[in-house]
Amino acid sequence: MAATEFGLIDRIAAAFARPDPARAPLGIGDDAALLRLKPGHELVLSTDTLNAGVHFFADVPPADLGHKALAVNLSDLAAMGAEPLGFTLALSLPAIDADWCAALIAGMAATAAAHGIALVGGDTTRGPLSLTVTVLGELPTGQALRRDRARPGDVVAVSGRLGDAAGALRALLASEPTDPALLQALQRPEPRLALGRALRGLAHAAVDVSDGLLADLGHIARASGVVARVDSMRLPVSAVLKAARPADWADCALAGGDDYELCVTLPPAHWTEAQARAEALGVPLTRIGECRAPSAGESPGVWLDGAPAPVRRGWDHFGGSE
Amino acid sequence: MAATEFGLIDRIAAAFARPDPARAPLGIGDDAALLRLKPGHELVLSTDTLNAGVHFFADVPPADLGHKALAVNLSDLAAMGAEPLGFTLALSLPAIDADWCAALIAGMAATAAAHGIALVGGDTTRGPLSLTVTVLGELPTGQALRRDRARPGDVVAVSGRLGDAAGALRALLASEPTDPALLQALQRPEPRLALGRALRGLAHAAVDVSDGLLADLGHIARASGVVARVDSMRLPVSAVLKAARPADWADCALAGGDDYELCVTLPPAHWTEAQARAEALGVPLTRIGECRAPSAGESPGVWLDGAPAPVRRGWDHFGGSE
Repeated sequence: MAATEFGLIDRIAAAFARPDPARAPLGIGDDAALLRLKPGHELVLSTDTLNAGVHFFADVPPADLGHKALAVNLSDLAAMGAEPLGFTLALSLPAIDADWCAALIAGMAATAAAHGIALVGGDTTRGPLSLTVTVLGELPTGQALRRDRARPGDVVAVSGRLGDAAGALRALLASEPTDPALLQALQRPEPRLALGRALRGLAHAAVDVSDGLLADLGHIARASGVVARVDSMRLPVSAVLKAARPADWADCALAGGDDYELCVTLPPAHWTEAQARAEALGVPLTRIGECRAPSAGESPGVWLDGAPAPVRRGWDHFGGSE
Repeated sequence: MAATEFGLIDRIAAAFARPDPARAPLGIGDDAALLRLKPGHELVLSTDTLNAGVHFFADVPPADLGHKALAVNLSDLAAMGAEPLGFTLALSLPAIDADWCAALIAGMAATAAAHGIALVGGDTTRGPLSLTVTVLGELPTGQALRRDRARPGDVVAVSGRLGDAAGALRALLASEPTDPALLQALQRPEPRLALGRALRGLAHAAVDVSDGLLADLGHIARASGVVARVDSMRLPVSAVLKAARPADWADCALAGGDDYELCVTLPPAHWTEAQARAEALGVPLTRIGECRAPSAGESPGVWLDGAPAPVRRGWDHFGGSE
């Protein structure tokens, strides 16, 4: 393969399935891409950047990196209840290593194919290793699962298991042996798209857990003006994580991040149906708490085991405290 | 200002006009943004990355950088004939310099306001300085100005003037004095959105000149299967450029890039009307050549002054020859 930018673009274009011309009449190769939504639908879009040395280790297997760059964006669509349509990839590379690029692209293409979505455009350029993905999806107009619709009395529930990815990351950072199951959670997160769609019409509010449960549930609580109470004994945590991180598994689950599970609130009357739909999809859905109205003078936020949890807006890449 | 990521996000959110809730019911602050298209319209989107040291000098005025990151993306929408709706910004910064960030954001916000578009989402993270913008627009379904619709007999025309930006860049790279008018072309390109829309229904094909006229017109020629003939004597070149770069002004105009002018092809019967619409917008539109069918065995491409121009796919950031 010629190690040129246009060789790379051709290779990328060839690796991905051609978009359905009825939905994406123009993809890679023009000034811009065209996408057609179903009538009565609105566009949903999200952007996330992964930088080498910040979001991933430079020696991560490239196929896993390709998967994860797309999966974390799809997770945002899942948290809206949306159907994914396509995505763009802005890829900066210090140089073109043909084998590494081929593995990256293959990993991303496999994930795109698994979700039936097309690469519709992007940009390749020289620069420090970085991937910015923008995913596009659609939703019946007005049916998005937003952050600001939780109500007092809602059940708080979370999908899957929490903390496994953080457990793997902490082991890697400490150069300790890493359990393969935890590493899988860190490198191959699966966006909960089917669950997000299944909870449309049942859940009041939803968020994906990328910065840690306390931070992300805090977004719902403050946007909705409720107090979200969480019982730490109810957190879904794997036996593997408890065994691997006996001292900090709870912190991994509450504040670790990189889970890409869905945290939702829903009225108690919908809880049984939500459980049934999650079970039909083979996804655990665990009730971990409830929402209540703030008392007079009380700020909205998260309470953990009967006491206010510190306000966390999430991971600050610049190390400031907030 | 607290130099934290969330302080930066708040500052960005405050700097941009709030989106029209009827068109963008959900912007910054949820997992994903929502956009509503007009009935009978399709989505148009484009992504471009600007990396420090590759696409801009690290000491470029930040307000100009903010403008240009958005303008070069809007130029892609202009080349489709689209109406811009909004954009996302993925911003990587090595550290947060409050004054520098404020100027960057102000520059971008002024350009967004000038075009009536909203920032609907994005990502901020730590990393080498880089901006990836994804612009979103809409078009009446089926009316896009594509690259692959040029026909034999079409007039080839280009807006504005070519080569000024390249003239400034070459002077900067050689540490020579730079004419302010040329520097303006490099740092403050104006996307030709109104012209692109005005040429819908008149032009057969369009491209924005970002990689140089020969490269970008070559995209049209090869995608459309025509030979595009260009007469170098007709190129619109400023007197300033000719005076500043007596030895290479023609190369700046033909192969320099960074022009963000529109190159279009249109049937001769539409030429007078196209000229009138461009004049009404105050934008020069210059006829520089014609399209013809390839002879038997001849490849589509660009001819310059009666001879085939070398095939240029554009600027290869990795230095490979293609």
